[in-house]
Amino acid sequence: MGDSVLEELLREDLQYLDLTTSVLGIESVVGVARVFFRESGVVACSEEAARIYELAGAKVKYFVRSGELVQGNQLVLEAEGEGSSLHLAWRVAQTLLSYASGVATYTRRMVEKARRVNPRVKIAATRQTPPGSRIFYIKAVLAGGGVVHRQSLSDSILIFDNHLAFLGEPKVSGAVRRALEHAGGRGVGVEVGSLEEALEAVRAGAYYIQFERPDPRLLGEWVKKIREVDGRVVIGVAGGITLENVEEYASTGVDLIVTSAPYRARPIDVSTRIERLEA
Amino acid sequence: MGDSVLEELLREDLQYLDLTTSVLGIESVVGVARVFFRESGVVACSEEAARIYELAGAKVKYFVRSGELVQGNQLVLEAEGEGSSLHLAWRVAQTLLSYASGVATYTRRMVEKARRVNPRVKIAATRQTPPGSRIFYIKAVLAGGGVVHRQSLSDSILIFDNHLAFLGEPKVSGAVRRALEHAGGRGVGVEVGSLEEALEAVRAGAYYIQFERPDPRLLGEWVKKIREVDGRVVIGVAGGITLENVEEYASTGVDLIVTSAPYRARPIDVSTRIERLEA
Amino acid sequence: MGDSVLEELLREDLQYLDLTTSVLGIESVVGVARVFFRESGVVACSEEAARIYELAGAKVKYFVRSGELVQGNQLVLEAEGEGSSLHLAWRVAQTLLSYASGVATYTRRMVEKARRVNPRVKIAATRQTPPGSRIFYIKAVLAGGGVVHRQSLSDSILIFDNHLAFLGEPKVSGAVRRALEHAGGRGVGVEVGSLEEALEAVRAGAYYIQFERPDPRLLGEWVKKIREVDGRVVIGVAGGITLENVEEYASTGVDLIVTSAPYRARPIDVSTRIERLEA
Amino acid sequence: MGDSVLEELLREDLQYLDLTTSVLGIESVVGVARVFFRESGVVACSEEAARIYELAGAKVKYFVRSGELVQGNQLVLEAEGEGSSLHLAWRVAQTLLSYASGVATYTRRMVEKARRVNPRVKIAATRQTPPGSRIFYIKAVLAGGGVVHRQSLSDSILIFDNHLAFLGEPKVSGAVRRALEHAGGRGVGVEVGSLEEALEAVRAGAYYIQFERPDPRLLGEWVKKIREVDGRVVIGVAGGITLENVEEYASTGVDLIVTSAPYRARPIDVSTRIERLEA
Amino acid sequence: MGDSVLEELLREDLQYLDLTTSVLGIESVVGVARVFFRESGVVACSEEAARIYELAGAKVKYFVRSGELVQGNQLVLEAEGEGSSLHLAWRVAQTLLSYASGVATYTRRMVEKARRVNPRVKIAATRQTPPGSRIFYIKAVLAGGGVVHRQSLSDSILIFDNHLAFLGEPKVSGAVRRALEHAGGRGVGVEVGSLEEALEAVRAGAYYIQFERPDPRLLGEWVKKIREVDGRVVIGVAGGITLENVEEYASTGVDLIVTSAPYRARPIDVSTRIERLEA
Amino acid sequence: MGDSVLEELLREDLQYLDLTTSVLGIESVVGVARVFFRESGVVACSEEAARIYELAGAKVKYFVRSGELVQGNQLVLEAEGEGSSLHLAWRVAQTLLSYASGVATYTRRMVEKARRVNPRVKIAATRQTPPGSRIFYIKAVLAGGGVVHRQSLSDSILIFDNHLAFLGEPKVSGAVRRALEHAGGRGVGVEVGSLEEALEAVRAGAYYIQFERPDPRLLGEWVKKIREVDGRVVIGVAGGITLENVEEYASTGVDLIVTSAPYRARPIDVSTRIERLEA
Repeated sequence: MGDSVLEELLREDLQYLDLTTSVLGIESVVGVARVFFRESGVVACSEEAARIYELAGAKVKYFVRSGELVQGNQLVLEAEGEGSSLHLAWRVAQTLLSYASGVATYTRRMVEKARRVNPRVKIAATRQTPPGSRIFYIKAVLAGGGVVHRQSLSDSILIFDNHLAFLGEPKVSGAVRRALEHAGGRGVGVEVGSLEEALEAVRAGAYYIQFERPDPRLLGEWVKKIREVDGRVVIGVAGGITLENVEEYASTGVDLIVTSAPYRARPIDVSTRIERLEA
Repeated sequence: MGDSVLEELLREDLQYLDLTTSVLGIESVVGVARVFFRESGVVACSEEAARIYELAGAKVKYFVRSGELVQGNQLVLEAEGEGSSLHLAWRVAQTLLSYASGVATYTRRMVEKARRVNPRVKIAATRQTPPGSRIFYIKAVLAGGGVVHRQSLSDSILIFDNHLAFLGEPKVSGAVRRALEHAGGRGVGVEVGSLEEALEAVRAGAYYIQFERPDPRLLGEWVKKIREVDGRVVIGVAGGITLENVEEYASTGVDLIVTSAPYRARPIDVSTRIERLEA
Repeated sequence: MGDSVLEELLREDLQYLDLTTSVLGIESVVGVARVFFRESGVVACSEEAARIYELAGAKVKYFVRSGELVQGNQLVLEAEGEGSSLHLAWRVAQTLLSYASGVATYTRRMVEKARRVNPRVKIAATRQTPPGSRIFYIKAVLAGGGVVHRQSLSDSILIFDNHLAFLGEPKVSGAVRRALEHAGGRGVGVEVGSLEEALEAVRAGAYYIQFERPDPRLLGEWVKKIREVDGRVVIGVAGGITLENVEEYASTGVDLIVTSAPYRARPIDVSTRIERLEA
Repeated sequence: MGDSVLEELLREDLQYLDLTTSVLGIESVVGVARVFFRESGVVACSEEAARIYELAGAKVKYFVRSGELVQGNQLVLEAEGEGSSLHLAWRVAQTLLSYASGVATYTRRMVEKARRVNPRVKIAATRQTPPGSRIFYIKAVLAGGGVVHRQSLSDSILIFDNHLAFLGEPKVSGAVRRALEHAGGRGVGVEVGSLEEALEAVRAGAYYIQFERPDPRLLGEWVKKIREVDGRVVIGVAGGITLENVEEYASTGVDLIVTSAPYRARPIDVSTRIERLEA
Repeated sequence: MGDSVLEELLREDLQYLDLTTSVLGIESVVGVARVFFRESGVVACSEEAARIYELAGAKVKYFVRSGELVQGNQLVLEAEGEGSSLHLAWRVAQTLLSYASGVATYTRRMVEKARRVNPRVKIAATRQTPPGSRIFYIKAVLAGGGVVHRQSLSDSILIFDNHLAFLGEPKVSGAVRRALEHAGGRGVGVEVGSLEEALEAVRAGAYYIQFERPDPRLLGEWVKKIREVDGRVVIGVAGGITLENVEEYASTGVDLIVTSAPYRARPIDVSTRIERLEA
Repeated sequence: MGDSVLEELLREDLQYLDLTTSVLGIESVVGVARVFFRESGVVACSEEAARIYELAGAKVKYFVRSGELVQGNQLVLEAEGEGSSLHLAWRVAQTLLSYASGVATYTRRMVEKARRVNPRVKIAATRQTPPGSRIFYIKAVLAGGGVVHRQSLSDSILIFDNHLAFLGEPKVSGAVRRALEHAGGRGVGVEVGSLEEALEAVRAGAYYIQFERPDPRLLGEWVKKIREVDGRVVIGVAGGITLENVEEYASTGVDLIVTSAPYRARPIDVSTRIERLEA
């Protein structure tokens, strides 16, 4: 992740002056900032949080890598520097850590719960990140052991009803064949609503089938029938899946659980304590 | 909000090609996109969502203004254009609307609940927005009837413990006086932990007092005592306040309820239906 | 393509003043610019060229759409405006048209030649565009009837020797399986050097096989053998393929011809004639 | 050249994730990348290629400076780092080196061929670089021993027919005098089509005369006649000059050979071999 | 201040090539640049000037910190590096130092003169910086001992006549009360034209009162009367105040002298001497 | 001038919210803003000021073009729009007009005064604009009838002592010849300190001679002697020239008066009156 993305985050929290630090005249007093998790969770974007302290002019002494599980009251980052640096970085770094680690922690929990009933299933997070946060939330999902379903419109082919609406002959099989013709080396994905549509798509050559809000009691049967027709097709399920119901969907035997739930996870409670260093 | 911010959002979801639209060959088929709320909520950032459709090349026919309350299944935005435009704007606009309206709706609920017990209290949202989202979430808070506590480090003076740590003599009164000397026409705010500190700050000239996670049963008393000393001081309370406990804090008579809870609100369920227009 | 990309192109050719137009004092004389192809070719990026004239302050009266074939001495764009606008846009628009249409024309020729011997083959252009030009060259390849092999590192999985070098057990099958485990709904591609490696990859589940500089006399046989093992796998060939030898490779029955040759095509000879309009 | 230009190049090839490196799980395996020329050529933009590796997080151990001639199979750059760094930088750096060194090598060949018949002649490359590449191609021309004819509209005065069209009295002499009046300390250049126009321009005070596609058999005579009138005027020739015909034009005694041919040179064949380093 | 702001300054003075350094062939000759004040003044933005030399590739050996007073012919910055670095940074750094130190020096003089008659008065500089310079001029004002009146529209509430014009009931007291209701923890400021308006504003709860071009002979009386009504209100005066008349206004007892005069100060005369270093 | 430059100016004065307009709740009240010159002056950057109102969402009804002379109390710009638009644009547009018109007015005065004694002399403004303002100040100088001496390091060759210091043989003639060899079609300029140096430079082929702070009583003689040697050379003078002494230098017969004085001109007194429009 380039520095310019992180400079942009600093600029979100500073126009010209950090007024409080300035009026107190503590810009050049030297101190140390220690960032703690107040509860257990999976760390994410700590590399970026550390770099934020550096871009603000501080020196990073320690940080826990993304993907590690830490306990409550555990130190995750420590930086030394002048007041102007520490106070500039404090909230920006803390807020980034807090949201990203919330996403990672939730993802990890979904992964663990789902794997208990389906050891090969993947938790795949969607593109529906808060506006402006995608680069950070993608990193957080990976830190939590998830995969990224799609980064953007540019990285995969996935046909929705809203695409079919534009085709003269709005049948799934026609759309898949049309897509395959121009797909180059990419597999074609389709979102479907029924077993029939799914089988039609598979027979037309789809590589990835995504069910939108299916009845989980039927889904298990459907997955088996599809795999009988094509043993290689990748099957996903999307729509309203959270930590509460993930097992139910995972146990159907799908390959991918597609979800936006991690993005709405409660942020990890993170605090920063700043102290003066004796000269 | 300048176009460049919104172009940046489009770039979050597109690197070069919208692969699906491209391989299906529907870039120039003309259609209409209709964006609906699936549940009731307060609209926010609809002006920006509409502009996103325009920047993508579509023509906006209708949209509901930020701040309006809409019902489930109500149309909030309609745009016409080519497939390349509608499919580019679809998710970007929908996701923005969904998160921002979630923030606005939660804010409105907090406002209403708090006002029932304290008609003059304000819900003031913090700077702790998801990374990259601040400009949108600030607009959403306003749409929900909240106020913005601080936009950034540059727009107000608020002294925390982490500032006091840097001062030789770490007493609240000294810090307030020091700040006042350089504050120009700005009021000085302090976060305090007890009535004693609050009174010390008020006597030193603080304009705004913020209590961090006080016992709400004591807070009512404290507010009265502070107002006896200075009838003009603004009093806020922060830390862990949500829709669940907002009344308890509002009823203490404070002026401001400072909270990050709206930022963690569930996004509004928004859907977009795209149809082909007959030539 | 957002305006900011095109403003950047204008900035490439202007720091502050167009000195010549300024010292001649012709900034506000009104005229018309007509852009001609001096030779036949496939137009590309004409929408962008037209927008460049608009961003410079001119009014576009006419332009030929990307993808159309035009003859020598044919008008492809006409714009009216003041001297300051026309002279600012002139070379920027012409150079863009010239390079992009060169790429499109070469692509179209490869497509036509290859299709004569293999009607379903695709010409897929690589990521090796001149630095800074990718967005324009991708559009040009599409205009010429080609497909985009990969837009960036972010849009597909393609395993090269340089990746295998990092794996403890550098066998193709292991790498494919490892990739498949995390690939979500994406197919996995591999570049291979022999039939044996290809079959190993296919058996491990690869969706796309790319041969690097194979002997075209052997390739036909290999393609057949692979298709016997897996009728759905997509097969490509890369390395040194140009208009001169494309038929030889196309006739092997591959699905994709991967090439950078269009990017090195001679630009189309384009000229711009500017005339004063009588007031 | 600032880092932001090079970060932009990295962003051309990465939206969020390097998918292949990520799904293989080789982000933190340490290795070495060695970049070789597969054929002899003049190195250009190697400083930038090295910086690209550094911006991606690798450590550069060695590189050949721009302007040096290297042989086939010669190492031009070596960098060590983690898989995520080397795979991010690999193609971006290689493609930059490949195009820029192609430009430099072609320029050097034109310079050498032209100097054999006219030791003081300069090869001056035009503004017609591929869109987005100017800063790199200018550096490459200098590395090849060429000069930059014009960087942009802002760095010189050069009057074309398209300017004359806007003047009421479209005579070269009038335009030159008008330009001279506002030119400050800059010389005025004119593109002309005949000896008569050239002499008219020189007599009006032009400092630089550029012939557009003249008959090279006449040009030698014309150059002599112009020098008789003004011994200081700089004379250039432009239009269709390549390595094939450069001697013919150089031998006419002109000062400058203005050409876009180097920009269309075949890129140098560059390869990158990445190996794992034992821990 | 982030590097990107300073890179932007370098780009202001360089499009692609430093032509003079390039045609003389002195890019890699090593030398030293020494920046001197030719007259006494308060240094400002020397940290930024030093960083400019570093971004240009030079090594900074010494510089005087912002806020220090230096004498004529005193060295304020010294950097070593190659010709390409020193010549790129020379004027950009010198011009920045020259303007910023002019602002700081003027501010310091106003501060000193005003404090002689009113030891607690502050010189507060306005938002009326030259377009594009705000970040530098704010830093310069602080270096001179001034305070920043407002950084932007986003950092304070200040009601002008142009706001009142939009309110149905254009009375100061109504506007103040309306503002207070939404001001959160911020004080409300008003610009007024008379004592009556000032008292009305104070009684309505205004925290800051600003007089626009009052008669200084009356102002002293008004300040006393306002303080009798409210001992805490902050009083400022704005409009046409310069070094010539600052004492007159300061002696009225106001808290803030609001002025744009420092931005129009004569730049400090700064020179840079570059010498070759023996190899 | 691209919109992005002007959006940047708006961003200088707004981070997220215009607090005053927001707390007063006047964002959507419709009004008119009228911008007046309070004193006579030459308008500059009014096109940009108008565009700023448009970018803020207002509709421009009228504006005076750059370069026109207006009287005190004359309307120069009028725009209608909502409160949020008018209050956002107000100061940004006014400050730009104020500084730029100050520069233009001062330039015009220098031009008029100088021409009285030397009708062909040009006032050429330097690169020493306030940091960040160059694009606006260049436009202002042209509006005032001046010329731009150099836009940046990239648009001309001008040899100073600081360049000579890097050459082994630091003689002016050697430097000029070296520069000429690589100058292509550009003239070479030199700053000199004496007639001897000037003649040496001219004989070596310099096209432009610039005297730095010469004794004006000697300069007239020197100019004549140089013209005897070379009738075409352009002669300029630089260093400390202002409206006060411009005639003295102009009367020496030089071609160019090089000065930074216009950039330090007092800004024109501009005011903006905003009124509500009846619905």
